[in-house]
Amino acid sequence: MQPSPGAPSEAGTVVTAALLVIGDEILSGRTKDKNIAYIAEYLTNLGIDLREVRVVPDVEDEIVAAVNALRHRYTHVFTTGGIGPTHDDITADAIARAFGVPIDVDPRAVALLLERIPKDQFNEARRRMARIPAGAELIENSVSKAPGFSLGNVHVMAGVPTIMQAMLDGLAPRLATGRKVLSRSVPAGLKEGDIAGPLGVVQTAFPDVSIGSYPTFEEGVGFTTTLVLRSRDEGRLAEAQAAVLAMLAEVRAGPAVGT
Amino acid sequence: MQPSPGAPSEAGTVVTAALLVIGDEILSGRTKDKNIAYIAEYLTNLGIDLREVRVVPDVEDEIVAAVNALRHRYTHVFTTGGIGPTHDDITADAIARAFGVPIDVDPRAVALLLERIPKDQFNEARRRMARIPAGAELIENSVSKAPGFSLGNVHVMAGVPTIMQAMLDGLAPRLATGRKVLSRSVPAGLKEGDIAGPLGVVQTAFPDVSIGSYPTFEEGVGFTTTLVLRSRDEGRLAEAQAAVLAMLAEVRAGPAVGT
Repeated sequence: MQPSPGAPSEAGTVVTAALLVIGDEILSGRTKDKNIAYIAEYLTNLGIDLREVRVVPDVEDEIVAAVNALRHRYTHVFTTGGIGPTHDDITADAIARAFGVPIDVDPRAVALLLERIPKDQFNEARRRMARIPAGAELIENSVSKAPGFSLGNVHVMAGVPTIMQAMLDGLAPRLATGRKVLSRSVPAGLKEGDIAGPLGVVQTAFPDVSIGSYPTFEEGVGFTTTLVLRSRDEGRLAEAQAAVLAMLAEVRAGPAVGT
Repeated sequence: MQPSPGAPSEAGTVVTAALLVIGDEILSGRTKDKNIAYIAEYLTNLGIDLREVRVVPDVEDEIVAAVNALRHRYTHVFTTGGIGPTHDDITADAIARAFGVPIDVDPRAVALLLERIPKDQFNEARRRMARIPAGAELIENSVSKAPGFSLGNVHVMAGVPTIMQAMLDGLAPRLATGRKVLSRSVPAGLKEGDIAGPLGVVQTAFPDVSIGSYPTFEEGVGFTTTLVLRSRDEGRLAEAQAAVLAMLAEVRAGPAVGT
């Protein structure tokens, strides 16, 4: 779903984030992560700069260390995974430990779970999903009811993609967001090595516009390049794009490729 | 390609790894990473435990800090991205700085590049791709010739998936590898909340077998669960699998689901 930002954007504000993916199954290769790309794009559309991603195993010490390393560095930390009812779901306890706060069954979370789970099936394991650290705000999810939570600037979400996505939609309206980074994609139609020199000159002239060069390789066809320009300033972005297009035209018309 | 391991496996040896993905384009969501899942599975098949993944931007300080945090902790560190000819390709310089060694154009790398690039097109930018830190061993790639390199326990590879994969094949024969983790997948056919209690009991009885519980959710169908058992010991794996199957049969036959 398209994100609907909460706090109004302020010109110039830079809001940053890290993502912590929790799960042995990603590290073993058994499960192909689908959340990193989704969250990266979603946050970019909200005006939040994703600055770092970490994937760690279901090991409490590792989760605690990563959360504490990240939460002091970035505006937001998002986590995915490890909030189900089984023995390997240890994220909520790890977050409580990282913040040094107690954790217990939360009546608000119980009420949400009982909207979906019949009372006679609300066993000890399912009650575990209602364990929420003290002081946390719940993140509702429209798909399966079991909530995530925000504690301080750490937002704890499910690992199952459809549920994570529902939580992100529930969470977005209350997230501090910044001024959105705008981008322009320019297919260069040339190899990186043929444009790298003059492209570096353009980058130096536009230090406030980030210019990325992305090669793709196809067997039999060889390399081609896409240039991506990114800036919060529409005017500067347009100027940089014009400079890149002029540079490309010059290289194409040039006396000899590769000189 | 299937990995061909180098150093012979030693019983009981645990060989660990971290993966450092370098690239703004992954963090902005523009490019969906394909390397994490591929490398995770490849290393698992080699008997190397991937313990951590980090994604960082094209910022030298961030790369240096991540490399130095990871290389002292794990047997191997693999990096992807940032070794092309453009201004945003700064990985080789960052690795040299992380190790405190000089970096310069390497005649071995030049020779490899000249196998593909005509001499009159071997410009300054392309020569940049031959910059290799002092003391590094080259990682050849059969696809595009431009080499990666290993410096100490850090293995620096391309970001373009087909090229990264060719480099991994070139690198695998000289990697220290360990005893392979074996795994068994058991489709539970039940919801996590219905088996979490007795599953925890099985896990406690088999502390040397890691039992992961992975829910999937389908709209209209609801939740189901796959259990994944992992161990280096074939015998213990089989015993744990039998215990899990017995537990599942008991839950299915049980008096009331959810009690």
